Amino acid sequence: MKLQVAIDRVSLAEAVTLASQLNGKVDIIEMGTSLIKDYGNEAIVKLRAALPDSQLLSDIKTIDEGEYEFNQGFKNGADILTVMGASSLDTIRLCEKVSKEYQKTMMIDLLEVGETKIEKLQEFKSAIFCLHHSIDKSDSWNVVETVSEFHAKFPEIQRLAIAGGIDLSQAEALKKQGLMEIIIVGSSITKAVDSIREAKKFMEVIA
Amino acid sequence: MKLQVAIDRVSLAEAVTLASQLNGKVDIIEMGTSLIKDYGNEAIVKLRAALPDSQLLSDIKTIDEGEYEFNQGFKNGADILTVMGASSLDTIRLCEKVSKEYQKTMMIDLLEVGETKIEKLQEFKSAIFCLHHSIDKSDSWNVVETVSEFHAKFPEIQRLAIAGGIDLSQAEALKKQGLMEIIIVGSSITKAVDSIREAKKFMEVIA
Repeated sequence: MKLQVAIDRVSLAEAVTLASQLNGKVDIIEMGTSLIKDYGNEAIVKLRAALPDSQLLSDIKTIDEGEYEFNQGFKNGADILTVMGASSLDTIRLCEKVSKEYQKTMMIDLLEVGETKIEKLQEFKSAIFCLHHSIDKSDSWNVVETVSEFHAKFPEIQRLAIAGGIDLSQAEALKKQGLMEIIIVGSSITKAVDSIREAKKFMEVIA
Repeated sequence: MKLQVAIDRVSLAEAVTLASQLNGKVDIIEMGTSLIKDYGNEAIVKLRAALPDSQLLSDIKTIDEGEYEFNQGFKNGADILTVMGASSLDTIRLCEKVSKEYQKTMMIDLLEVGETKIEKLQEFKSAIFCLHHSIDKSDSWNVVETVSEFHAKFPEIQRLAIAGGIDLSQAEALKKQGLMEIIIVGSSITKAVDSIREAKKFMEVIA
């Protein structure tokens, strides 16, 4: 299981500093959507330069213009880019095509995507599917149960990630469950007094 | 009926030049999603400065983090911001809240949104609803018929915009139909040999 640390809603300078500190210590650094919408491609370029040893995911949340956005993201240095599962299949197919050209990875974000649509998304065999609890929703969720139910319904989807308020105990439970390829952790690490120490705790728990 | 001209997939310098030329000659300039994802908030600031006489719509396509993204967009100078209708109602409610605080406008993009969801979206009385044909879809659509069917199904939605390959004859037909508040035109104007002359033609047709 891999740890992806999401950096979001900070200045680009702060993001670069934090990414440099976490480089090589976690598997994947995510530059959150706020960084792409606040700073554009410059954020991808600067974070790429700060991350010689970790992968870079840019959470661009493409929902249209799949070819253009994926080309921009990979060209500027991202290893993984996100497309919304709510997009049309045509859009996601274009994202898949560009990902294959660059030999990079597409992550499909399942935020607000119903089961009928997820069935159709199963054509994207090489994609990572991200179960995603909206930051704007105030309700709680049981992550392990959510994953278990998802896996029972869609056993053919092999590559799974999960995002949305994952803490250390949930990370440990997900590791035991053994269905996740990536867990995505944000403020539990980035807002900690000592982010590096907190990241290490997560890495130990999922090792 | 208003004309919104969408500038997309060009350099920021080119976008600013074109926006300056169209300022005051069209109602609304849209900075396309590519400009926000390529350049970030700098694009909003620079286009705002170039547009003393036209409104600025930033097509940020929010799908999560509604409060943060709408605050950033309005703070940097946009008059209208877009949120995806595919977002959770919680997200759109946050976008609406921020729009009201700034006394600015929210546009809900109906790309890939089904009728069940549109029924729920009717709670957003002051929003402009944008019928949107994906740039990634190769099929054609009859815009006037699409609008007519939409209006018959959702007569309570008063503020309507439409985007997706609108040409001069479609603009004229939409004007006659009388249901649109805004028509959004992209490459028919921005890729024309003389964009200003082309924009004037559209303005005359919808006057």
